[in-house]
Amino acid sequence: MSKQPASESGVRRGRPGYDQGQVLEIAVQVFIEQGYDATSVATLATRLGLSKSALYHHFESKEALLEVALDEALSGLEGALADAGEGSARDRLEHVLRGAVLVLVDRLAYVTLLLRVRGNSDVERAALERRRAFDREVTALVRAAQSEGSVRSDIAPPVATRLLFGMVNSIVEWYRPSGEEGAQELARDVLRVVFDGLGTR
Amino acid sequence: MSKQPASESGVRRGRPGYDQGQVLEIAVQVFIEQGYDATSVATLATRLGLSKSALYHHFESKEALLEVALDEALSGLEGALADAGEGSARDRLEHVLRGAVLVLVDRLAYVTLLLRVRGNSDVERAALERRRAFDREVTALVRAAQSEGSVRSDIAPPVATRLLFGMVNSIVEWYRPSGEEGAQELARDVLRVVFDGLGTR
Repeated sequence: MSKQPASESGVRRGRPGYDQGQVLEIAVQVFIEQGYDATSVATLATRLGLSKSALYHHFESKEALLEVALDEALSGLEGALADAGEGSARDRLEHVLRGAVLVLVDRLAYVTLLLRVRGNSDVERAALERRRAFDREVTALVRAAQSEGSVRSDIAPPVATRLLFGMVNSIVEWYRPSGEEGAQELARDVLRVVFDGLGTR
Repeated sequence: MSKQPASESGVRRGRPGYDQGQVLEIAVQVFIEQGYDATSVATLATRLGLSKSALYHHFESKEALLEVALDEALSGLEGALADAGEGSARDRLEHVLRGAVLVLVDRLAYVTLLLRVRGNSDVERAALERRRAFDREVTALVRAAQSEGSVRSDIAPPVATRLLFGMVNSIVEWYRPSGEEGAQELARDVLRVVFDGLGTR
C-alpha cells in the first residue's frame, strides 16, 4: 500500500484534521489497549472523532493500518542491520543492538505491536517472517563474531541471539519516554551488560 | 482457597477422572491460548470433558484457578530468593537468577500466565504486587553487590534488574522442553551472559 505523508496528499477530510501519521499513531494506541483483533473500524473512527468514511480516506482497511505500523518497526530494525557497515562482526553486532534499542525507544508503540503479533493473518505472517529473517542475520553475526574470536563460543548463537533480543524487547514493557534513562544511556547499558557483563573483572 | 490433592479429597466426579493438578494444568493452557478474560467456565468444562458442576468440585471459580496458577509461578520465584543463603550479594544474585530460569522452565505455563497479567482484578493486582516485591528484593541484591564491588556500579540497579529479568522472562516466548537446551544449560548460559558478558576478555 502507498504511504503518503499528509502534507503531500493534498486532501484532508473530517475533523479534527489528522494527517496519516497521526491517524496511525492513535490507531496503534487503540490496538495496544484493546488488542488488534478486538478493535473494530467503528471503534477507531469514534476514538479519532472521524466518520468511518473519513478514516477510510486515510487507510483502506484496518489491516492496512496494521501493515504500515509493523513496517515502521521492521524497517527500523532492518535499517540498523543494513547500516552496520563493514567493520568486524563484533562492531556490526554492537551497531545492530544499539540501533535496535534506539528504534524501540523511538517507535515504542510500533515495536510493542510487532511483539504481540501471533500470525493470525497474511499481514501478520509476513511480519513474522521478516522478523525471523532479521533474527537469522543477527545469529549469523554472532556466529561470525565467535569465529573472529571477539565473542565467547561456549553459547550457541541462536540461544545468544534470543537472550539478547529478549533483553532488548523487554524494554517495551517498562520504558517510558519521560523516564530518567534516555535512549542513548539505555543503549549504552544494554551494550555493557551484553558484551562485558554485570560482573566486575 | 483450599488446594487439596485429588488423592486426598476422596471424591471424584465427572469423566475422565482428573485430579486438581490436571484440571489446573489444562485450564491454564486454555487461558494462554484464548486469554483469561475471554475464557468462560463453560469453555473450560467442555475442554476438560467435565460438567460445570464437576469442574466447580475442583475449583470454586475461574478466578480461583487463576489464583492458584499465579501462586505456582510466584511461590517458585520467591522460593529462589528465600533459599539464596547467606553468601555474598553476588552469590545470592546468581542463585536467584539460576532459580528463576529453572522455575520458568519447570512451570512454563504458570509463568507465561503471570507475565500476561495486567491487573484487571484483585487477584491480578495481588499477583502484580507480589511480583513487584520480588523485583524490589532483586534490585536490593544488585545494589548490595555493587556495594561489595562484585557488580559494576555504572548501571542503575533498577535498570539492571529490568534488563536481567527481561532476558529471563523472554525465555517463555521460545523455550520448549523438547529443545536441545536443557534447563541447567540454559541457566548456565544466562549466568554467563549476565555476569561475564558475551565479549571475550
